[in-house]
Amino acid sequence: MATDLTADISHEELQLAARNHALPLEALRHEITPVGLHYLLTHFDIPYVDVDMWRLEIGGLVERPLALTLDDVKARASRTLAVTLECAGNGRALLVPRRHSQPWLMEAVGTAEWTGTPLAPILEEAGVLESALEVVFTGLDRGIQGEDPHLYERSLTLEDALRDEVLLAYAINGQPLPPQHGFPLRLLVPGWYGMTHVKWLQSITVVDEPFIGYQQSVAYHVRQSEDETGEPIKRILPRSLMVPPGIPEFPARMRHLEPGPCVLEGRAWSGRGAIERVEVSVDGGESWEDADVGEPVSEFAWHGWTYRWEAEPGEYELCCRATDAAGNSQPMSAEWNFDGFCNNAVQRVPVIVS
Amino acid sequence: MATDLTADISHEELQLAARNHALPLEALRHEITPVGLHYLLTHFDIPYVDVDMWRLEIGGLVERPLALTLDDVKARASRTLAVTLECAGNGRALLVPRRHSQPWLMEAVGTAEWTGTPLAPILEEAGVLESALEVVFTGLDRGIQGEDPHLYERSLTLEDALRDEVLLAYAINGQPLPPQHGFPLRLLVPGWYGMTHVKWLQSITVVDEPFIGYQQSVAYHVRQSEDETGEPIKRILPRSLMVPPGIPEFPARMRHLEPGPCVLEGRAWSGRGAIERVEVSVDGGESWEDADVGEPVSEFAWHGWTYRWEAEPGEYELCCRATDAAGNSQPMSAEWNFDGFCNNAVQRVPVIVS
Repeated sequence: MATDLTADISHEELQLAARNHALPLEALRHEITPVGLHYLLTHFDIPYVDVDMWRLEIGGLVERPLALTLDDVKARASRTLAVTLECAGNGRALLVPRRHSQPWLMEAVGTAEWTGTPLAPILEEAGVLESALEVVFTGLDRGIQGEDPHLYERSLTLEDALRDEVLLAYAINGQPLPPQHGFPLRLLVPGWYGMTHVKWLQSITVVDEPFIGYQQSVAYHVRQSEDETGEPIKRILPRSLMVPPGIPEFPARMRHLEPGPCVLEGRAWSGRGAIERVEVSVDGGESWEDADVGEPVSEFAWHGWTYRWEAEPGEYELCCRATDAAGNSQPMSAEWNFDGFCNNAVQRVPVIVS
Repeated sequence: MATDLTADISHEELQLAARNHALPLEALRHEITPVGLHYLLTHFDIPYVDVDMWRLEIGGLVERPLALTLDDVKARASRTLAVTLECAGNGRALLVPRRHSQPWLMEAVGTAEWTGTPLAPILEEAGVLESALEVVFTGLDRGIQGEDPHLYERSLTLEDALRDEVLLAYAINGQPLPPQHGFPLRLLVPGWYGMTHVKWLQSITVVDEPFIGYQQSVAYHVRQSEDETGEPIKRILPRSLMVPPGIPEFPARMRHLEPGPCVLEGRAWSGRGAIERVEVSVDGGESWEDADVGEPVSEFAWHGWTYRWEAEPGEYELCCRATDAAGNSQPMSAEWNFDGFCNNAVQRVPVIVS
């Protein structure tokens, strides 16, 4: 079941909520999210990397294994791409019952301008062998989840790894990556949920069997029980969020607004196609009107949207709902799943106009 | 009562924990905290400031009111100062019963290099009148706390406002302030808890009566009940924190370490004097040994410390305790107060060595 409220957050969940952070919703005003406002999930610890010692190893089923320094990576062709990233667990804390993990409400998102070098030419240079099936990306971050200690690792099919837009990124918003975003180098797979974009990359390994590491084959699946394998999570479902209008209460954050014209604004995105429509409701989803949807910041980033509302005194529940070119839309209430993934239910913003 | 665990965090508290964030403890390794890892508390919303329209107004009981552009401020004498900031509510979530507000555990801290211009010469230029008693700092951030909507405002006595180290800061770690740290200009009062360092400054007003705004006269007091005025919070109490050794579990974050030599490291600070001593306990505070304490990053910033531990198989509770030059030390368990301020009880880090 999906709800608008959560409760009884545990000590373990609060530890995660204190370390990680979501986008404060008023920061949706920025087309490119400033560093420090972008959502952040660190699965284990942030590694402390000595860049002089660091190398990116490209190996496995390749003709010519490579070991690149950061300068080697930077000397290659570069590309800057605005990409919207969202955590696959966004919305988890609003599912009942709730698996204990990072207790996201709905703001685990951000759009940055990432600069890096395309992955495909590196794989080409290394010479991927005929037998290759997948490419495994290994980070320097290590911890215990499931039974055993492991490095954070994820794979892509060779086909996905060779897509033009897949980058090895060393800069965010024109600055070197800060430690928390994967310094010195991270993977970027535009359109995919956050777990894919392996940070603190240390190696890229071409393999001829499906990769069965914990973060690939156990974690990040939509499933109904712990015994089930479920469906692997890949591309981002559509979502829209609004900047809550007016001013907040502290600590409750209920919004208060003066009567009169009010431009509601927000962002909408999907990893499955351009956003074709954003609708706004001021009555909790009873009735909907179309918002004006702008051009996206890039093919892989969110669209801005606005809606002119004539706010009259009263209490309202504002909602927004995005639909993408593939026909995916946001549900009023998400379907429950065991690990609390992919909850893209519409945002509800209670507002008092007086 | 102070505890090591908290529970039953409410929806309102989680909303705040999702917006605001603490320093991930492994980031204590950085002498200067990278932007995005520094703790952040936004009381209301982050304002969206058009710097071309922005002016800093200096007025009230002065001979020559001033209105400065950001360029005017930057053209003045500049000073860069490493300053450790800590939220006055750090440790709140570990007090029982707990007032619902930002549910900090113990990591609401950070040390940045702030660049700005000293405040005293600006007040001198404006010509503070004889009758002056306090200086009021007004931010652009507005919300509702207590009864009425108000801008975030705090005052200092004229004497405190004229201290050499008080800055109007426009840069952090060599970069323009990002929105969340007070763009375009914030107050910095080294040694004081975080509520003092007013962000998004729009005016500085010299007054001849004690300022009684909500954030000054009601909030930020140590008191035993809501009816009491209590004691105003000012300078930071001593605290030390360690980088939890080994690797974490996810999601529980219990630490696992291999047997052998282990250098425990961390930071210690106080707004009331230099740190003279850091002690470490590996048995939950039963016995203590001195750590090596380094020079502080600046007069107003934390010291690094290290302690060599020979980790043998077993379960441990690691603790650290700082003492400052004024003789203030950290309690094993903090005294309770109504709003949950100033809980500087020693950190406890359970570790399994195997």
